[in-house]
Amino acid sequence: MHNKLATITNGVDLARLTDTIEAVKASPELGRFQFRIQNRWIDCGENRSEVQPFTAGGKVFKHRTPFTLLADEPESLLGTDRGANPVEHLLHALASCVTTSMVYHAAARNIPVERVESTLEGDLDLRGFLGLAPNIRKGYQGIRLKIRIKADISDEEFQELISLGPNFSPVYDSITNGVPISVSTERIA
Amino acid sequence: MHNKLATITNGVDLARLTDTIEAVKASPELGRFQFRIQNRWIDCGENRSEVQPFTAGGKVFKHRTPFTLLADEPESLLGTDRGANPVEHLLHALASCVTTSMVYHAAARNIPVERVESTLEGDLDLRGFLGLAPNIRKGYQGIRLKIRIKADISDEEFQELISLGPNFSPVYDSITNGVPISVSTERIA
Repeated sequence: MHNKLATITNGVDLARLTDTIEAVKASPELGRFQFRIQNRWIDCGENRSEVQPFTAGGKVFKHRTPFTLLADEPESLLGTDRGANPVEHLLHALASCVTTSMVYHAAARNIPVERVESTLEGDLDLRGFLGLAPNIRKGYQGIRLKIRIKADISDEEFQELISLGPNFSPVYDSITNGVPISVSTERIA
Repeated sequence: MHNKLATITNGVDLARLTDTIEAVKASPELGRFQFRIQNRWIDCGENRSEVQPFTAGGKVFKHRTPFTLLADEPESLLGTDRGANPVEHLLHALASCVTTSMVYHAAARNIPVERVESTLEGDLDLRGFLGLAPNIRKGYQGIRLKIRIKADISDEEFQELISLGPNFSPVYDSITNGVPISVSTERIA
């Protein structure tokens, strides 16, 4: 039997969170998600993604409204600067995931937070992308994530709190440990 | 002396691309970029990033307009579904980067493309995020990237073309090989 009191911590409905945890514990297949997007090239450095319905436990879920995500390159990288560029989107994915993971897991531990802000900076050496130096990687060489938190909690709870984002964030795990990507290509007429 | 003919392939200004390559070759410090965002938690699974000016070769570049990137969780993940979620943003970062990297490098090789579309799907087991199974990772277990290309080129050029995205994309490299992330936390009053 679950506690059905409408307890909201950090905006998270704890009764629903408990229900989700219990449901996935009882039926692990409910925890299997597939997220999807479709991307289309516009011109030069500009392209757009449409977020697609996702699958959870074999069931398809549509988003409430369509989400279109833009990408472009700034003028110094030969684009028209109509949107954030791909490596800036990567930083957003990381920031948003660490924040949400911290906030949800804090709620589950009954740790209230008032404010969470973060600044992210990533180092990239263009010689990698341009193929000018084979020993220099194409991707980020390192990312610095600075989090500032306001919470009326003990020092002990604060120490617990700051570990939650990096420990549970799917994007943090994906970027620090890497993910295998399988690529297939089709030629269209 | 560079060829200053206004040659545009795939929307990419080849004279400017050549200038960029020559400039970074001559002064490697010009290739050093720092990209930055600031993120702020709103409530529950909702947060927003503001893309900040970036630095290239020690010089600060502002974007033409401000870019605000949203994130939220769908209702089945206890959010209000006001934006794509963090792991969907990660797929967008990957798709946009592979596409742009392919298009730019194809331009540099004088390979014209007409259409590039891609579909991405990532597998995630929520038991990792929920901390229910320590042997199941929090992040994506795998990502499938399907690219469809229309281009009036030889089979040989097509084979070259399809290698360019994965070979040169900074986000593809970041996600497949991983990036070290340093985290620091500050408590605000």
